[in-house]
Amino acid sequence: MRNEYHHELDALVHRLAGMCDSVGSAMQNATAALCGTDPARADWVLAHEWVIDDTRRRIEEDVQQLLARQAPVATDLRVLVAALYAAESVERMGDLAQHIATAVRRRYPEPVLPVLLRGRFRDMGGIAVRLAAAAGELVRNRDLDDVQAMIARDDEVDRLHRSLFPVLSDAEWDYGVATAVDVTLLSRYYERFADHAVSVARRMAYVVTGELPQHA
Amino acid sequence: MRNEYHHELDALVHRLAGMCDSVGSAMQNATAALCGTDPARADWVLAHEWVIDDTRRRIEEDVQQLLARQAPVATDLRVLVAALYAAESVERMGDLAQHIATAVRRRYPEPVLPVLLRGRFRDMGGIAVRLAAAAGELVRNRDLDDVQAMIARDDEVDRLHRSLFPVLSDAEWDYGVATAVDVTLLSRYYERFADHAVSVARRMAYVVTGELPQHA
Repeated sequence: MRNEYHHELDALVHRLAGMCDSVGSAMQNATAALCGTDPARADWVLAHEWVIDDTRRRIEEDVQQLLARQAPVATDLRVLVAALYAAESVERMGDLAQHIATAVRRRYPEPVLPVLLRGRFRDMGGIAVRLAAAAGELVRNRDLDDVQAMIARDDEVDRLHRSLFPVLSDAEWDYGVATAVDVTLLSRYYERFADHAVSVARRMAYVVTGELPQHA
Repeated sequence: MRNEYHHELDALVHRLAGMCDSVGSAMQNATAALCGTDPARADWVLAHEWVIDDTRRRIEEDVQQLLARQAPVATDLRVLVAALYAAESVERMGDLAQHIATAVRRRYPEPVLPVLLRGRFRDMGGIAVRLAAAAGELVRNRDLDDVQAMIARDDEVDRLHRSLFPVLSDAEWDYGVATAVDVTLLSRYYERFADHAVSVARRMAYVVTGELPQHA
């Protein structure tokens, strides 16, 4: 009985880690669609959203089953509570990738981003994808060595996000207010995506240390 | 023992409902500061943020204690899981009210909002405050009659949010790109605040019906 239970707990953890990988792929495709010219990659993101939502629903059901049947304590209980929170954060990361894909589709065949800003969004996207992968790794191995590096990457996304506002407010901004509005929201989606990846990391830190993380 | 347990469960539920009231007050003050000229109300929001964060931390600790000590099942288990999620949403509502207060403070003594848009933000704020109050009520009484009304109010906030973009993109928009960027993010904060209130409502519906809510 205990063995089957731990097998189910492992399966749950691997499902959560796989969900991190899925939102990483979604973000990679959404960023490629945003910074390039291939709307098919935006469509891919929109077509696969259900997989992420479905995985989250399964994780949630499994956690509740395990809580009800096994009455876990100590680390096992912390894993289950952390999985509930983390699945919520990761699903939200998927939503944000989807918002980016939707923006690309809405403006197509016009590009949403001025060419001027592509490099910056490619950088934010690259970091975001690495953060999703790092969150997945951390869920799998609970090796807290990477948490600080993740926080540093999140700070870098924040810096890139903030550095856009002077560009948009500059007198030489030639792309109009509507584009500035789009860019503002898009940048915010990357910033929130990175925040959520760090909040998954903090939850995993809590599984290991038993300390409730400060809210990011 | 069961009696003490149910007393603790009631206390937890009332703490969560009180947290909804707190973020409603925060939003009311943030909106008054944004649409008026009283920066003291923004300061009030920023000074009281710790209360909301602290309440959330207590709720989380209490849930974990109750899960570990009581191994609840059925409705009691659903209440605890729902409280975990809801506390996260409500804390996020507090963060969003705080973002609005911070924006007011950052531009002071200049107003963040053009007078033209005050009425619109006052409307969004009024609905947001009512949604926070309705979420608190629902946590207290689990009377699902109000859920549909909450969803309709959230739709109204979405409508107000979307209706801003044509105003910002209009050729007659006289307030520059920097203001458009501020307005875009502020409007997004109201929209997310309302979403989170509805997600609390969905969680309470789940306590009653046992159906996992579709993600909003």
